[in-house]
Amino acid sequence: MKNIEDVLQGIDGALDESVARLFELLRYPSVGTDPAYHGACRDAAAWLKRLLAEMGFKARLDKTTGQPVVVAEYAPKGLPSHAPRILFYGHYDVQPPDPLDLWESPPFEPQLRKGTDGEERIFARGAVDDKGQLMTFLEASRAWIKAKGGLPFHLTVLLEGDEEGDSTHLDRYVAENRAKLKSDVVFICDTGMWDAKTPAIITRLRGCIAEEIVISGPSKDLHSGYYGGAARNPIRVLTKILGELHDGNGKVTLPGFYDGVDPVPASTRRQWKSLNFPAKKYLKGVGLSIPAGEKGYAVYEQIWSRPTAEINGIYSGYTGAGSKTVLPAEAMAKLTFRLVGRQTPAQIRKGLRQFVKARLPADCKVRYKSEGGDSMAVTVAETSPWVRLAQNALKQEWGRAPVLMAEGASIPVVGTFKSLLKVDSLLIGFGREDDGAHSPNEKYDVTSFRKGIRSWARIIAGLADQQERPKS
Amino acid sequence: MKNIEDVLQGIDGALDESVARLFELLRYPSVGTDPAYHGACRDAAAWLKRLLAEMGFKARLDKTTGQPVVVAEYAPKGLPSHAPRILFYGHYDVQPPDPLDLWESPPFEPQLRKGTDGEERIFARGAVDDKGQLMTFLEASRAWIKAKGGLPFHLTVLLEGDEEGDSTHLDRYVAENRAKLKSDVVFICDTGMWDAKTPAIITRLRGCIAEEIVISGPSKDLHSGYYGGAARNPIRVLTKILGELHDGNGKVTLPGFYDGVDPVPASTRRQWKSLNFPAKKYLKGVGLSIPAGEKGYAVYEQIWSRPTAEINGIYSGYTGAGSKTVLPAEAMAKLTFRLVGRQTPAQIRKGLRQFVKARLPADCKVRYKSEGGDSMAVTVAETSPWVRLAQNALKQEWGRAPVLMAEGASIPVVGTFKSLLKVDSLLIGFGREDDGAHSPNEKYDVTSFRKGIRSWARIIAGLADQQERPKS
Repeated sequence: MKNIEDVLQGIDGALDESVARLFELLRYPSVGTDPAYHGACRDAAAWLKRLLAEMGFKARLDKTTGQPVVVAEYAPKGLPSHAPRILFYGHYDVQPPDPLDLWESPPFEPQLRKGTDGEERIFARGAVDDKGQLMTFLEASRAWIKAKGGLPFHLTVLLEGDEEGDSTHLDRYVAENRAKLKSDVVFICDTGMWDAKTPAIITRLRGCIAEEIVISGPSKDLHSGYYGGAARNPIRVLTKILGELHDGNGKVTLPGFYDGVDPVPASTRRQWKSLNFPAKKYLKGVGLSIPAGEKGYAVYEQIWSRPTAEINGIYSGYTGAGSKTVLPAEAMAKLTFRLVGRQTPAQIRKGLRQFVKARLPADCKVRYKSEGGDSMAVTVAETSPWVRLAQNALKQEWGRAPVLMAEGASIPVVGTFKSLLKVDSLLIGFGREDDGAHSPNEKYDVTSFRKGIRSWARIIAGLADQQERPKS
Repeated sequence: MKNIEDVLQGIDGALDESVARLFELLRYPSVGTDPAYHGACRDAAAWLKRLLAEMGFKARLDKTTGQPVVVAEYAPKGLPSHAPRILFYGHYDVQPPDPLDLWESPPFEPQLRKGTDGEERIFARGAVDDKGQLMTFLEASRAWIKAKGGLPFHLTVLLEGDEEGDSTHLDRYVAENRAKLKSDVVFICDTGMWDAKTPAIITRLRGCIAEEIVISGPSKDLHSGYYGGAARNPIRVLTKILGELHDGNGKVTLPGFYDGVDPVPASTRRQWKSLNFPAKKYLKGVGLSIPAGEKGYAVYEQIWSRPTAEINGIYSGYTGAGSKTVLPAEAMAKLTFRLVGRQTPAQIRKGLRQFVKARLPADCKVRYKSEGGDSMAVTVAETSPWVRLAQNALKQEWGRAPVLMAEGASIPVVGTFKSLLKVDSLLIGFGREDDGAHSPNEKYDVTSFRKGIRSWARIIAGLADQQERPKS
């Protein structure tokens, strides 16, 4: 195995400089969803381009229909022909910092503060999501290049500015630049650890689709005194339909909904079970005590491997102070569905329409609005060589094997890479549960940053080993 | 029977003056719910006080917690001791005139316009509701006094300015002035005809209560990716509960809901059936075709004699453009219940709470807000002497017997008179279906006004006859 003590010493010895570089990036208020900050987005992208150029990358800014993407290519000389092509993905845009008055230090003036536990932390918007995390990989690459002269693989770095906003901008960019982005695997550093001491690799993500449904009945709002009892009330129709969306066991009742929901492999189930997922604590943390999902599944299965139908919003009629005796002309709900396995957006939409049609009174109408951002579920085989390589590397750095876990949320870009580039993503991140991504006082522990950089260095080492191993 | 040709000729001969007086009243923009018009409300009340004083009433304005009430007493000399005491109730406040741009003439500049059918109509806000209607009774009294020298009964006129707003103002006033308002019957002219040629007496009104219900689950809004499937979604809980509020036959499923819902007497059912209620036209007029109420009941029964549970508003989560993957912390709905027979507000509220409690997950909470304005159903016996007297009088004027019908809406003041003064109301009005109360271009046909005045004159005649009939 390659000796990488020089790389690790380089990382530890220059940590202050790494933190200083991260601080520079954190000072750009690059809120991609707010036009007032689009100048800051361009500045952050330009800073990253300069950084990568200084490291020896061929770096450029490419236009998209949203914020520019930073694209930087590293093509080391003299690599064997079988050297892998890696695509590293991250995002330089951040969530809006509101509410500002809850921040203990200004969100775009990064601060190092030591906690009562002795741990040093970096406080700033974007500290963990995703500036701190994406910099772990760039700093590891920098340290490797400095110590070894060059990376042992072809690398393209792709950093976008619309991750917290409209994902269709990057989708379009990837679709139009497939050839340039072609690679063997995507590395992404935008997820969390299992706990402060145990690293994690995410091997499953749920997909997501969003539908708005509007039921209309009477041609206008009616007086409930003159019409109540005889006239159709669209709120009644809507609540009746939505109230039947789940059966008594928490199963979704749409026809064909569970087609393509494959059972989780026994090995994965064993691995998950061994995690002792703290279900009670997880629910208690948000004021709940009873798992609300499908009976017969553990809480971690309900969020990791089972599909859902959720009502995210509902609105109709009079909702102000006091009462108004109105029977409204229409009623609206916003739904999302989390997808797993081979469930397709088309299958779910078809089931929803059948389900509603079967329950819709003949004198009511329904209309749908499909929101953008469809994503299918993504699964990375736990036996994939990339996962095995990362498992070994993370175990060396953290002294314990990483957890192979799933995530209930969707990271649409992973689906985009899978469907457009036909390539799997390796999701490794060093965030902690209390980092407060999207919240005031977002932070990233210096330990996460340092050991994150070192973890990537060990993964790079694993790739170098592969090059040196004689091919049979 | 008393000869009243002099009264009727007086009415017809002075119709232009009656219309001119109504126009004066219509010019006051007396919108009781809008503070900007409270001066106009006081002016309208003062004008009515002057009018009644000129007619020989002892008239005054009494303060309430809302707009002032006009109270005018007419105590003719030399009446026999058994002469009845009549309370006439009306309201001088009107609905806001919005949307103004839909009016063909300014809402507070009354106009006489002849339709293509030759019918002259009075256009103004309040033309029918209730200025035109209340003036039919006052003009009849004026004509009677002029021709006969005095009314054949004790009369108190009570005109309020909060009917379209908060009914608790008048409730408080009546509660504090029971002795002064004590009477044998209340006359109210604020309802409609069966059709343009057939008068109507309303003998049943549904009661009404309003409840707001809020279901809360998680301690804060959750991300549906990280929690969807395992965490309780209050919209799901609320829609499930509301979706079970009615069974497959349209019956309300609250425990004890139908206690006190007495069957409609056979004679009333026969009378209603003979009306040939135009159910198809009634539903088609609002874009519907299928009666949505309890199976086994005709449409007119569903709105006149059956209680209801209606959802008038619902709100939770994200309802803006696009989608947001949120599981909201709470979900709200506004309900009203129409009451019939002896159903009490307390009974319905108790049933609702039991019903929700039985369906509420243990880690959810519910809170209620009872809106004001409770009213129980009101029924006036069709065999009451007041109804019989009115039936005869209306038949003389219109050439056909009046329809005894019910109204699905609630007129809370009728319940107030019943509960606080222990007195029935006689509900007779001359509005037509196309009058557009509460809508732009509200109107009152001159025929409604003229024959309305004449109808009340004939009712007064009937009362005079009673005085003259020797007591046995």
